[in-house]
Amino acid sequence: MNQQFAVIGLGRFGGSICTSLNEQGMEVLAIDVDEERVSKYANDATHAVICDATDEKALKSIGIRNFDHVIVAIGDNIQSSILATLMLVELGVKHITVKAQNDYHEKVLNRIGAHQVVHPERDMGVRIAHNVVSKNVLDYLELSDEYSIVELRAGNIVDGKSLETLDVRAEYGCNIMAIKRDEDVNVSPQAEERLQKGDVIIVIGSDKDINRLESALFDDTNDDD
Amino acid sequence: MNQQFAVIGLGRFGGSICTSLNEQGMEVLAIDVDEERVSKYANDATHAVICDATDEKALKSIGIRNFDHVIVAIGDNIQSSILATLMLVELGVKHITVKAQNDYHEKVLNRIGAHQVVHPERDMGVRIAHNVVSKNVLDYLELSDEYSIVELRAGNIVDGKSLETLDVRAEYGCNIMAIKRDEDVNVSPQAEERLQKGDVIIVIGSDKDINRLESALFDDTNDDD
Ligand SMILES: Nc1ncnc2c1ncn2[C@@H]1O[C@H](COP(=O)(O)OP(=O)(O)OP(=O)(O)O)[C@@H](O)[C@H]1O
Ligand SMILES: Nc1ncnc2c1ncn2[C@@H]1O[C@H](COP(=O)(O)OP(=O)(O)OP(=O)(O)O)[C@@H](O)[C@H]1O
Ligand SMILES: [Ca+2]
Ligand SMILES: [Ca+2]
Ligand SMILES: [Ca+2]
Ligand SMILES: [Ca+2]
Repeated sequence: MNQQFAVIGLGRFGGSICTSLNEQGMEVLAIDVDEERVSKYANDATHAVICDATDEKALKSIGIRNFDHVIVAIGDNIQSSILATLMLVELGVKHITVKAQNDYHEKVLNRIGAHQVVHPERDMGVRIAHNVVSKNVLDYLELSDEYSIVELRAGNIVDGKSLETLDVRAEYGCNIMAIKRDEDVNVSPQAEERLQKGDVIIVIGSDKDINRLESALFDDTNDDD
Repeated sequence: MNQQFAVIGLGRFGGSICTSLNEQGMEVLAIDVDEERVSKYANDATHAVICDATDEKALKSIGIRNFDHVIVAIGDNIQSSILATLMLVELGVKHITVKAQNDYHEKVLNRIGAHQVVHPERDMGVRIAHNVVSKNVLDYLELSDEYSIVELRAGNIVDGKSLETLDVRAEYGCNIMAIKRDEDVNVSPQAEERLQKGDVIIVIGSDKDINRLESALFDDTNDDD
């Protein structure tokens, strides 16, 4: 059976979680103390209810303990976030994910028994910072402090060149794992495959090697043409 | 020469961008109208100044037009965010990234000439929703609507099994691209390599194939042991 989710707090963050869970075909109960927010997400959730999550009786009456995973996305009111989390822990909810506003908030949430604490603004800040530093890096997945997977946009330098000719493995120590052309993704590119300007190349390697590869082959401002 | 960045608005999102740019060795000017915020980030930026970004004269006097990329991370005050962006456009800043609060805000920002508009809470909501749906998926990179790269945590089912034995390519149509063990990342795993419980496996494939692989080999609640 599919897991049952409940999301408490329908701001931008909690609302987006609701919509995405719903799109993935999950059962999700949308909860907010504010009637307007609840009606806004009525169509993006299996059910939507008005409920004050700091009110133990109210939480019980909506059967919150039957949910497999509850996400607390109350932000600005740290006290309510902590109180709601405490109720969920005491009611025995198995998985509780909570949005924290700062390190102090996180520490308290961990102490009282939250299972996962997230910092959406902070994490997205790190992602955007990586994104703006290299214009040719479209997206990335950090594997460790040293290794990453990045998406690079092919420009003039590599246009028409085959993987064999570029030989990024030997020259830069990175592996090209996939090539995205429009919406097609080739996850087993062959040596004869020629890159085209506009392709997106998915590369795995150390950050140092990826940086070298990017400056040499993907940064057209370094191009002599 | 390294690019020069300026970040306007030192909340959680803007502050995190500053810190991350600084950690990446970039030059970054941290700007806020609030003195306290400015002192908080003085050590996480090349310079930090108190400045009202809706005041054209003030922006000129700090030489904002000399920066390659300016990020506007003012959120709650939509009017200030729009006004500050307009000033930057008129001063001729080459790259302007702006945080939007909602779709209306985004539309206005695009109209007046922002080069990139981001929705951190919304985007992080989508990421968290993917993360909570499958407990064994630690992180992911969406390549297209159909293809993704995911990090899966190895449990009992695959413990001690070699890549050759598992043959995920033939059985599930996915490729194991890397294996992370503690902080070591092996980006060229050989067929004889044996997985250990706790390893993190980096897999590329279609969402459908990855889901099949995950349920069969990485979801220990399906395990008979
Ligand atoms: N005790 C409570 N019970 C249920 N919902 C609550 C409670 N307290 C606050 N909320 C709701 O939580 C939601 C998120 O609160 P927050 O103050 O973080 O708003 P926000 O800034 O709009 O969120 P975001 O940062 O995700 O955009 C709001 O819709 C608010 O009504
Ligand atoms: N006109 C302005 N000039 C410069 N800074 C400003 C201006 N208006 C607001 N700010 C600053 O922008 C920062 C972010 O504003 P916001 O209202 O989004 O705060 P926040 O909720 O703390 O941010 P976040 O959602 O990133 O945590 C604040 O530190 C605020 O002082
Ligand atoms: Ca908020
Ligand atoms: Ca890194
Ligand atoms: Ca905010
Ligand atoms: Ca997908």
